Amino acid sequence: MIKVGVVGGTGYTGVELLRLLARHPGVALQAITSRGDAGTAVADMFPSLRGWVDLAFVTPQDADLAACDVVFFATPNGIAMNQARELVDAGVRIVDLAADFRIRDVAEWQKWYGMEHAAPELVAEAVYGLPELNREQIRGARVLANPGCYPTAVQLGFLPLIEAGLVDLERLVADAKSGVSGAGRKAEIHTLLAEAADSFKAYGVAGHRHLPEIRQGLSLLSGQPVGLTFVPHLLPMIRGIHATLYATLTGEADLQALFESRYRDEPFVDVMPAGAHPETRTVRASNMCRIAVHRPQGGDVVVVLSVIDNLVKGAAGQAVQNMNIMFGLDERAGLDIVPVSP
Amino acid sequence: MIKVGVVGGTGYTGVELLRLLARHPGVALQAITSRGDAGTAVADMFPSLRGWVDLAFVTPQDADLAACDVVFFATPNGIAMNQARELVDAGVRIVDLAADFRIRDVAEWQKWYGMEHAAPELVAEAVYGLPELNREQIRGARVLANPGCYPTAVQLGFLPLIEAGLVDLERLVADAKSGVSGAGRKAEIHTLLAEAADSFKAYGVAGHRHLPEIRQGLSLLSGQPVGLTFVPHLLPMIRGIHATLYATLTGEADLQALFESRYRDEPFVDVMPAGAHPETRTVRASNMCRIAVHRPQGGDVVVVLSVIDNLVKGAAGQAVQNMNIMFGLDERAGLDIVPVSP
Amino acid sequence: MIKVGVVGGTGYTGVELLRLLARHPGVALQAITSRGDAGTAVADMFPSLRGWVDLAFVTPQDADLAACDVVFFATPNGIAMNQARELVDAGVRIVDLAADFRIRDVAEWQKWYGMEHAAPELVAEAVYGLPELNREQIRGARVLANPGCYPTAVQLGFLPLIEAGLVDLERLVADAKSGVSGAGRKAEIHTLLAEAADSFKAYGVAGHRHLPEIRQGLSLLSGQPVGLTFVPHLLPMIRGIHATLYATLTGEADLQALFESRYRDEPFVDVMPAGAHPETRTVRASNMCRIAVHRPQGGDVVVVLSVIDNLVKGAAGQAVQNMNIMFGLDERAGLDIVPVSP
Amino acid sequence: MIKVGVVGGTGYTGVELLRLLARHPGVALQAITSRGDAGTAVADMFPSLRGWVDLAFVTPQDADLAACDVVFFATPNGIAMNQARELVDAGVRIVDLAADFRIRDVAEWQKWYGMEHAAPELVAEAVYGLPELNREQIRGARVLANPGCYPTAVQLGFLPLIEAGLVDLERLVADAKSGVSGAGRKAEIHTLLAEAADSFKAYGVAGHRHLPEIRQGLSLLSGQPVGLTFVPHLLPMIRGIHATLYATLTGEADLQALFESRYRDEPFVDVMPAGAHPETRTVRASNMCRIAVHRPQGGDVVVVLSVIDNLVKGAAGQAVQNMNIMFGLDERAGLDIVPVSP
Repeated sequence: MIKVGVVGGTGYTGVELLRLLARHPGVALQAITSRGDAGTAVADMFPSLRGWVDLAFVTPQDADLAACDVVFFATPNGIAMNQARELVDAGVRIVDLAADFRIRDVAEWQKWYGMEHAAPELVAEAVYGLPELNREQIRGARVLANPGCYPTAVQLGFLPLIEAGLVDLERLVADAKSGVSGAGRKAEIHTLLAEAADSFKAYGVAGHRHLPEIRQGLSLLSGQPVGLTFVPHLLPMIRGIHATLYATLTGEADLQALFESRYRDEPFVDVMPAGAHPETRTVRASNMCRIAVHRPQGGDVVVVLSVIDNLVKGAAGQAVQNMNIMFGLDERAGLDIVPVSP
Repeated sequence: MIKVGVVGGTGYTGVELLRLLARHPGVALQAITSRGDAGTAVADMFPSLRGWVDLAFVTPQDADLAACDVVFFATPNGIAMNQARELVDAGVRIVDLAADFRIRDVAEWQKWYGMEHAAPELVAEAVYGLPELNREQIRGARVLANPGCYPTAVQLGFLPLIEAGLVDLERLVADAKSGVSGAGRKAEIHTLLAEAADSFKAYGVAGHRHLPEIRQGLSLLSGQPVGLTFVPHLLPMIRGIHATLYATLTGEADLQALFESRYRDEPFVDVMPAGAHPETRTVRASNMCRIAVHRPQGGDVVVVLSVIDNLVKGAAGQAVQNMNIMFGLDERAGLDIVPVSP
Repeated sequence: MIKVGVVGGTGYTGVELLRLLARHPGVALQAITSRGDAGTAVADMFPSLRGWVDLAFVTPQDADLAACDVVFFATPNGIAMNQARELVDAGVRIVDLAADFRIRDVAEWQKWYGMEHAAPELVAEAVYGLPELNREQIRGARVLANPGCYPTAVQLGFLPLIEAGLVDLERLVADAKSGVSGAGRKAEIHTLLAEAADSFKAYGVAGHRHLPEIRQGLSLLSGQPVGLTFVPHLLPMIRGIHATLYATLTGEADLQALFESRYRDEPFVDVMPAGAHPETRTVRASNMCRIAVHRPQGGDVVVVLSVIDNLVKGAAGQAVQNMNIMFGLDERAGLDIVPVSP
Repeated sequence: MIKVGVVGGTGYTGVELLRLLARHPGVALQAITSRGDAGTAVADMFPSLRGWVDLAFVTPQDADLAACDVVFFATPNGIAMNQARELVDAGVRIVDLAADFRIRDVAEWQKWYGMEHAAPELVAEAVYGLPELNREQIRGARVLANPGCYPTAVQLGFLPLIEAGLVDLERLVADAKSGVSGAGRKAEIHTLLAEAADSFKAYGVAGHRHLPEIRQGLSLLSGQPVGLTFVPHLLPMIRGIHATLYATLTGEADLQALFESRYRDEPFVDVMPAGAHPETRTVRASNMCRIAVHRPQGGDVVVVLSVIDNLVKGAAGQAVQNMNIMFGLDERAGLDIVPVSP
């Protein structure tokens, strides 16, 4: 059994990680840390875990994280980079669900995240954990940067087109919509039900932190800078991301066949039949990404629809998938969840 | 034109009051105070008011409230009681949308609200602003205690039965459900969309602050203590209260006729036809209370269904209605709003 | 492996049953019937099942249901009673998720359901499938009447009180609230999102079909007729039932200990700590019923809060639980689902 | 008083029209027709109108529509074109809220709407009722084609850019999202709350009927064909459209000043401050369109955010605005509604 620690278990990615790990057949949960809630039973804070998780939160000091095989950081940005060095030196493998190790260019990271990076040398060795792209490097990773939620949905949607060199890289558009859980379990006014329900808005049009992450991924894929307009929106619902992607075709191809072929062996990417419109609820609570590719009226614009559950494939589920790869387990272990619909 | 001041305009009852006052034909809005947001244009915080309210928030010091004819307190509990004396002495009439003047028994108030009362002598003279019960006293009120949201829906539902002496006063049950806006515009986790949407729960079963208020109202009405079980619940929606009331009949009457007769001349109580089930959306954004009375299977249990918009008839709308009465205006002035449905 | 057939797989209880059976380790799904959609791949209608169910709907004629070990009827009322005889005679065990076999008094059933009963003799032998009450009889059942959603939540809440003879049976009140999926997957106006969202209403106050079912259950338990007022309400959400139960205590007891003791060994009933308010989301997608018991202000009224997922413990999950008992499997098989929250 | 008839008052645009007309100071409502519901009191079907509309639905035959000054068609597509001729000849002015007169190219209309056009000669004289574009022609219109909901939001957003010749007309993208009320009050499965809530999807990517309408409007504006990709999406909420528009700049301009200048005198278009992200709830229940214009990272892509209430500015409110213009009333008459927020 893999000994697992979770740092920061009181947010949505944390509790979702616990939901998945609680049923994972190859894992023994050792400790879940929380500075503010040490001493509280996890199941008292999250009654949905009653009968599944019987640990209490402990302080980071009281958790013997160095004795774990892997530690997940389900923390705000800027935490993992301060604690990873010591754990890595102790032979613990790290999966960071926050952004500390996602951007290779440390100066760029510092600009978008507004703080100095505490462990640039770990950025250099960190592996970006998008299994559909980096499965081999993930196997050996000591520090794994789990991708952001929007970047997962957007990159999986553009990937086959860019690999095949089929689209104008100067003019990509990603119009993305996320459920409110993506904003985290923080006491803030703008995500109150009375503010965010029965309404819809864009945000961060001037620049969102996931923009450089997506741009980096697409540029690495294409070998050249890409021009991307990324507009996130807040959906009046709990879970789910829907990315609507627009690109101009520069070559001819059977797009449906291209996507199906690219993802044929991927356990967690489902290319829908031609003409389909994937709904976010069809992946609710599961690690699946469903994608449909369209070419409206046979023109030269390709429209890709890509949906994930932001807390699963966009966070905790992908983290478990990465752990499975890192430790040589069945990639599906603990992720055999039928989406909950309706 | 009546000169109006609003203290504490940044919460939901405050912004709702502004929505109503902005179109009120007999009112001139003088000042809207907020300690924390002084200097901010009201319409910057609440873009729905762009073009309707062009004031900025001011500090209470900078607002010449003593020059107003009436001041509304849309503040947390415990604020109005500290500021009312001075305004009353200056000849300003007070409408408190919070609870400071609702409970006649000051000791009881202090027990439920957990603070010492700063103006017990004003409690003694304050008028409880349920127009359907107290219209005459309201006319002359200097200090008006605007009823709570649950108490409005529950009292209007029980009122005809108790006035007619038709029910067992020992065993009243009020099972009430409220939209999340009732919890106010405060940054808290439990009312985040991701927490409160697509879910439902009771709260405060051991005792909710509206219990003594309702009990006081029903006891005054019946002239004896009443035994009331009151259980509030949180609905996964923004606006609306639905009170489902249960009582045991101790006498015979045509209940439908009783309710229709009692409320025939009330502009803001609508007795639905026999057999109806009022939906909260049928009063959305309006000052109406809709009531239906049932006697399931002809037994001795009467079930009353009473719905209001908690921010209108349960708060700001009733406050405007009370102001209209206090100043001799048409009771409907500024409240001629067709409910928004769907 | 138990050979399973599902009749009527296109409604919400049907698709939920498929979600649960798809992962059940002891089951082989043989056929899913639908008159209207025969030939359609199940996963085309329900994309959430892509990769999990690869059958197509077949007509009842084309499904060799007589070769199954058990057949689930996830059909409208009135279907199972016409098909059960033949299957039972062929040695197939029946689990009816509709109401055909729930009411022992056939005349009463006919009154509430508005049709003649086609198999009264099967009613006589049918077992009411509430495992917490009838586990032993369930083991041998040939025809199992799976309880209704409201009746499950209400009976589990009242059960310990009635068994202990602690409450006045003349004056029980069940104020119950259900998510919209309880109304089924039928094209109707009143359950459109634009009608039912952001609103709340009671319905069926004059009499709902679950009333006689609950009354029968509680009367059998107490050995005498009970006086029950049951008011169902429609919640603006998808899944979940919350029953708020009121009764007058006629004796003294440690209610918390009573409930904990009664349900200590039940795998799917969770008695919450004293003072708790269970939220429906804490059981979302799972077979759990969570219950809290309150005695407000130490008076003589007991308030029980009981929550289930109406599609799981209130329908498909309880059906699987019953099947597990009937076939001697681990009662938890296929039901090891951590509730999905948020 | 203008004598008004409404044909087809049982859908969402119909009931919304009644909400607005009920308070309109210059209007006398003569008749509301419905074949299916003739004889039913309007307020029985729509209790939100109790006390505001006391008419019953009548059959088209029983309504003396020819005696009206104006008749609104809040009907499905294909109805108005059959009845307009007779009314126009009787001197009645027509406002069609459906699509019968929106597309000038009758063959194109027939292709998208799948029926033969019954009154091509009226198409030729019909005026497209976007006041911000066509106010002068609207004054004299006998047949007014009220714009679609998406076309209103999209055209108002692109209009200043296209008039100024600032964008590449070959590559316009309109990613639009609508609340479910846009699908109408029809009994269908896909818009049930249990299907459409807590989920999000695109639809009609291959081609939506509003595409030719938007394309026609933008082409007329620019004097040349435009290349537009239009993707509509279904939001899990009742009211509101948010259009996110993308275009490539071909020239330099102060975009904020351009938009402010263009709409300075428009009563129902509000250009938000630079950097703003309009929320649909800020226009809820009102006739306002709010627009923000962005140029992310100072690049050559312009992003316009445009929000309306689909039932008001996207349907019934714009129809009333057009009527006001046609009859020389204050354009704001009956539309002085403060948006309902929260």
